[in-house]
Amino acid sequence: MSSQPQPSRRSRIDPFIVMDVMRAARERTEAGREVFHLEVGQPGTKAPGPVREAARRALNRDRLGYTDALGLPELRRAISKNYHDLYGVDVPMERIAVTTGSSAGFVLAFLAAFDAGGRIAMTNPGYPCYRQIASAFAMEPVMMETGPHSRWLPVPGDIERAAAGGLDGVIVASPANPTGAVLSDQELAELIGAARQAGAVYISDEIYHGLSYGAPAGTALAVSDDVIVINSFSKYFCMTGWRVGWMVLPEALIRPVERLAQNLYIAAPSLSQHAAIAAFEARDEMEAVKDIYARNRQILLNELPKAGLTDIVPAGGAFYLYADISRFSDDSLAFARRMLDETGVAATPGLDFDQVNGHNYMRFSFAGPTEEIEAAAERLKAWLPGQAL
Amino acid sequence: MSSQPQPSRRSRIDPFIVMDVMRAARERTEAGREVFHLEVGQPGTKAPGPVREAARRALNRDRLGYTDALGLPELRRAISKNYHDLYGVDVPMERIAVTTGSSAGFVLAFLAAFDAGGRIAMTNPGYPCYRQIASAFAMEPVMMETGPHSRWLPVPGDIERAAAGGLDGVIVASPANPTGAVLSDQELAELIGAARQAGAVYISDEIYHGLSYGAPAGTALAVSDDVIVINSFSKYFCMTGWRVGWMVLPEALIRPVERLAQNLYIAAPSLSQHAAIAAFEARDEMEAVKDIYARNRQILLNELPKAGLTDIVPAGGAFYLYADISRFSDDSLAFARRMLDETGVAATPGLDFDQVNGHNYMRFSFAGPTEEIEAAAERLKAWLPGQAL
Repeated sequence: MSSQPQPSRRSRIDPFIVMDVMRAARERTEAGREVFHLEVGQPGTKAPGPVREAARRALNRDRLGYTDALGLPELRRAISKNYHDLYGVDVPMERIAVTTGSSAGFVLAFLAAFDAGGRIAMTNPGYPCYRQIASAFAMEPVMMETGPHSRWLPVPGDIERAAAGGLDGVIVASPANPTGAVLSDQELAELIGAARQAGAVYISDEIYHGLSYGAPAGTALAVSDDVIVINSFSKYFCMTGWRVGWMVLPEALIRPVERLAQNLYIAAPSLSQHAAIAAFEARDEMEAVKDIYARNRQILLNELPKAGLTDIVPAGGAFYLYADISRFSDDSLAFARRMLDETGVAATPGLDFDQVNGHNYMRFSFAGPTEEIEAAAERLKAWLPGQAL
Repeated sequence: MSSQPQPSRRSRIDPFIVMDVMRAARERTEAGREVFHLEVGQPGTKAPGPVREAARRALNRDRLGYTDALGLPELRRAISKNYHDLYGVDVPMERIAVTTGSSAGFVLAFLAAFDAGGRIAMTNPGYPCYRQIASAFAMEPVMMETGPHSRWLPVPGDIERAAAGGLDGVIVASPANPTGAVLSDQELAELIGAARQAGAVYISDEIYHGLSYGAPAGTALAVSDDVIVINSFSKYFCMTGWRVGWMVLPEALIRPVERLAQNLYIAAPSLSQHAAIAAFEARDEMEAVKDIYARNRQILLNELPKAGLTDIVPAGGAFYLYADISRFSDDSLAFARRMLDETGVAATPGLDFDQVNGHNYMRFSFAGPTEEIEAAAERLKAWLPGQAL
């Protein structure tokens, strides 16, 4: 008699496909074959010098036990100061919760603000974990369709339409994943206004802040204190694997988030927290890294059209280009596998980000080393033309 | 008009009280006052030498990006080998998921195996996060009452009774928190049999494995492959703040857990994973640390009765004593505050672990330095007699 446990219905969420691509790429590397990593949204460089130095110091000096559930006071203070220095907004450290990456920020925001059945508006395409986390918690993602016509940005009318069926929350990233789309300050304020009008909590995903190639993205905190802001050291500060991020909370949600964090996480990793305190000293180093992304972005914007990928909105932030591949395939998952197999270029199928039109898109990350981006572009120029439908 | 967001109903879980005590203790320290830390369940010593050395190496060499959602293959392999070496059971690395501490293990186990409304049997008293996590996910904790009469251990009849209302899961820790209670191999096998009989998934919390002062606790994996085992590097290996643990999964739950982990966590902290690979080399160092706990335990078992705390079951594992304080107070929360305020001894109110009888109990952790335990015992001997009701 087998008594293998049955998986729950709620565990039948989609995989985060990019993680599966990442694993396939790793297996290919282990088999001694070349891989160009344009799949995963993480920098090719290490954490900045001051961060690694602070980590070394903490490793020598600190016991590295649990911290407060909301994080090391010094780190919360440094984040508060950064809001003052960088954006000119005053955010008391009491409203800042250090989290185990922005992943924990989404989990805590959703659990603190929404109950089972809660409806959360989000863009399609968008970061896939929003809808999967919502589904795992028996909440209902409400998709706001965006496209090249709207520069991949949602508009207040999208929130109004979503609110027709009742709406509890809105989550929008700017700069956005997978498209790099950036809201203007005016557009951001209008979305926050529409969410307030609808009685929905606005969650501003600012994880790609700092990574803009035109006007910088504004923080939702300049518009309202009643929003939830989610950010992280992962992207701009090149600290993906360190799993340390933060939330800024409205007063009413501080204690609910603290209780949930105590029970679900205990605390974010101590060493990463100690190290992250030093991150804000590394702005010059990070701006130099951003210059590399800007160069890589330009390489892809020049070369991908030559390979036949002519339909790309050259969006202004993050480190992604979202390319229409419909001339080559209407199955981005199969296309990604074939591309990895035949060229060594790993990229992420649009299906990860958009269940409606994602079969026609691929996301190319340009966060890796320039030589890798260049080599990948060459491979694609040689391979893609033979793939036309 | 205030538009402060309303907290969700599900966020109205209890705080993890020990975290609040920890914060009060930290604030007292910052105010320059002495604190004896018998509150939090974490070792007073740093992570072992090989772990810190491996962390230094990873810090210098590795990019520290995201790992596979289920963890670094080398770490999964090392954990698999440890099951062979330590318990003589063969667990393929494919069934091992590295998690962000055991906290993530509970979250992933509950989400992968249970839906909203799912009923999970657990002991009272027990680790409070079990029931709070279940509540946050709209599942239903079903309490199995234990007491000094049963040496704080559940029996098969408790599972049968819980199953009368339908039962989806059972979670039991051995050694247990807050009581230190340890199941014999026979008792463990009987509980697993009763869970199977009831059609419930058995989750074995083995986080305190390695910390036994009599016969070692057996692993549920020696009994069945269809259980979920949760463990961590936090306790035995003194790595609480590193947030790295693991689960062993039945085949049917591997992919569900992987999908959930990809979306909710991305991956456990990379540096901690690299470091943890070296933990199993540090058994001698850890056994020496355990000798300190054994000494501390004996000090408290000798001295607390002299202070008037005569009702303590001298349980065989973990690093806790669970003491009946009913001669002094019927409000353990107020008692804990007063004790911290008047003696500097921080300990955890039983209310954290037991909502029925916890007002009559306090948990004393003996994981700290021996001098601290000795000093705390002296303070209590001077203070407690004056508190008798």
